[in-house]
Amino acid sequence: MGVSLLLPLEGVRVVDLTNFLPGPFCSMILSDFGAEVIKVERPPKGDPARYQGGMFTSAGRNKKSVALDLKSDEGKEALRKLVLNCDVLMEGFRPGVLDRLGFGWEAVRALNDRVVYCSISGFGQTGPNRDLAGHDVNYLSIAGALSISGDPDGPPVAGGGVQVADLTSAMYAAVSVLAAIINRGRTGKGAYLDVSMTDCVLAFMGPRILEYFDRGMPPKGTMMGRSGFGAYRTRDGKYVSVGCLELNFWQRLCDALGDPELGRDPKYLGWFDRMKYRAEINPRLDEKFLLRDRDEWMKILREADVPVTPVNRIEELENDPQFVSRGMIKRVNGQPLVAFPVKFEGLELREPGPAPELGADNGGILGGPGL
Amino acid sequence: MGVSLLLPLEGVRVVDLTNFLPGPFCSMILSDFGAEVIKVERPPKGDPARYQGGMFTSAGRNKKSVALDLKSDEGKEALRKLVLNCDVLMEGFRPGVLDRLGFGWEAVRALNDRVVYCSISGFGQTGPNRDLAGHDVNYLSIAGALSISGDPDGPPVAGGGVQVADLTSAMYAAVSVLAAIINRGRTGKGAYLDVSMTDCVLAFMGPRILEYFDRGMPPKGTMMGRSGFGAYRTRDGKYVSVGCLELNFWQRLCDALGDPELGRDPKYLGWFDRMKYRAEINPRLDEKFLLRDRDEWMKILREADVPVTPVNRIEELENDPQFVSRGMIKRVNGQPLVAFPVKFEGLELREPGPAPELGADNGGILGGPGL
Repeated sequence: MGVSLLLPLEGVRVVDLTNFLPGPFCSMILSDFGAEVIKVERPPKGDPARYQGGMFTSAGRNKKSVALDLKSDEGKEALRKLVLNCDVLMEGFRPGVLDRLGFGWEAVRALNDRVVYCSISGFGQTGPNRDLAGHDVNYLSIAGALSISGDPDGPPVAGGGVQVADLTSAMYAAVSVLAAIINRGRTGKGAYLDVSMTDCVLAFMGPRILEYFDRGMPPKGTMMGRSGFGAYRTRDGKYVSVGCLELNFWQRLCDALGDPELGRDPKYLGWFDRMKYRAEINPRLDEKFLLRDRDEWMKILREADVPVTPVNRIEELENDPQFVSRGMIKRVNGQPLVAFPVKFEGLELREPGPAPELGADNGGILGGPGL
Repeated sequence: MGVSLLLPLEGVRVVDLTNFLPGPFCSMILSDFGAEVIKVERPPKGDPARYQGGMFTSAGRNKKSVALDLKSDEGKEALRKLVLNCDVLMEGFRPGVLDRLGFGWEAVRALNDRVVYCSISGFGQTGPNRDLAGHDVNYLSIAGALSISGDPDGPPVAGGGVQVADLTSAMYAAVSVLAAIINRGRTGKGAYLDVSMTDCVLAFMGPRILEYFDRGMPPKGTMMGRSGFGAYRTRDGKYVSVGCLELNFWQRLCDALGDPELGRDPKYLGWFDRMKYRAEINPRLDEKFLLRDRDEWMKILREADVPVTPVNRIEELENDPQFVSRGMIKRVNGQPLVAFPVKFEGLELREPGPAPELGADNGGILGGPGL
């Protein structure tokens, strides 16, 4: 079999013990770059994400699956073989679980000191919260993101639409695994990565934390309230969003909406003033936007060079001209999979493919010539 | 000067022409891993983020700054020298701008074919939207995230708290640069990376897209509404968040709140049922949570092994015991900077340091012995 020099992780084998979203989303990225990802699942049901509406299909693409009971001697022996022959080991158990099964960092390093060992957990492997249970909303909460989430004038709501904590930690795990692979090229040794989902959300909060203190610790509504920047409802019940942060865009928006006085009012010329007086400004904008349908406003505002986009509903994504042009959604077994979002020259990516059946590769991998 | 084998990007030089948040957040990560990041800024004011409440301080740490007018011959010559001596070039102009200045991908590759050239733009370098202006909210909007953002039963609101589109694209740029560096180790050649912020948000939407179709295209409230999972107001006006997705956590929550009948009601035993009947369940929970202060509920619910966390306000982060224990926030010149969120063994990170004054390194870099 030929090896492509242009798949950057061709020849890298990832043994992935993680479930649900954070770990699998990370190993999906490694697989998109050409790594061989072997998903190790617990029989008889496997990754619980298999039963959670599409999550498994989304992140499982192109992976292999072996079903191993890690509490049995056979399962342990099979995992030992995999560890001897892998480059990256990923796990998302509660801290200490894999150690008790005989596959903690020290034990794995003794077997194969080239392994990059990546642990993903809710709060990290250390600290007072290490053993606590939690979900996405808890990590957002403790990292301060929830306190400024949702409607600016309403209570905290995990309102990001996407699974911010899960996906943020998946991305930090991926950059860290790649950095550790680069380092191994110079030192010959693997590394241990302790990825805390909470800490990853806190890193995303970095710019907001400084903004908050710089602005004198404003309440949520003052910090997050906007006008001329956000979604507005149109006559047909759809929404457009406009991003008029700069004065020129703000004035073009008011002109195109037919309210040029609003754009010239000296009270609203500064961005912070438009945030401050949002309760005066937004109702005037709301009223205007309700006068026409979404697509009419799209045409008028695009012609006026205002930053405007439709608020696409999920079923509209596949036919959006920009995504069609970029080839961003590919149907695999009838399912819409999103391609890796960066386009390359001088580098190749693996195309999205199907997710494996549970244990599909038990024969080929555990008994195969590769190990 | 000694080179540390344990800083994975030691010896990698990044020339960073980007402003605001997406590009600088990416090069901050490369710098944390040991790369030398030279920020090229336009005189006389430099990166507009310098005037935007903390954003610059947050992402500028440990970078160098040179002020170059890329429209002047001197500026072009200086950038040419930098390109001849760099590993990564990052830019975030509107598509085509750098090409017209003589530093498009083909021109840079002709100067130095080992360069990893990373362009970050709102919609990408191709497609009908390529030349449109936009901001974070526009990218969230076209990628479908806005349609399921904010309060589940309210209008679309960019309610993630953090700058989801900016930071998502920073992370995809970072993983892609690292993959291209790995590839260069085998091929000797750089690569071109076309990072579209919109496409990056769409990639984060991947799991939601499949969930949406799997669940029969539910309206936003049905898709995103929760009960027993989210923030609840306590007697002192603060909030706690609970993450009771699993039945055992749900029942423990109801018991600890003093409403065991709610946890046993057969109507609410399934997760999807608890989402469906949230309008019946949440008011009962709201009422209970209002009976005690936040810290009382924290104690009671932790003892009951319910996934519960305080909804920290930003000023509470620095003293949160978990973040203190993990050393996550470091004061640099009095400013609270968030450390890289992954802890390593076998790999080192650069500690957070100050951001540069505009042009601080003009002398040292442009006239220095390194070039």
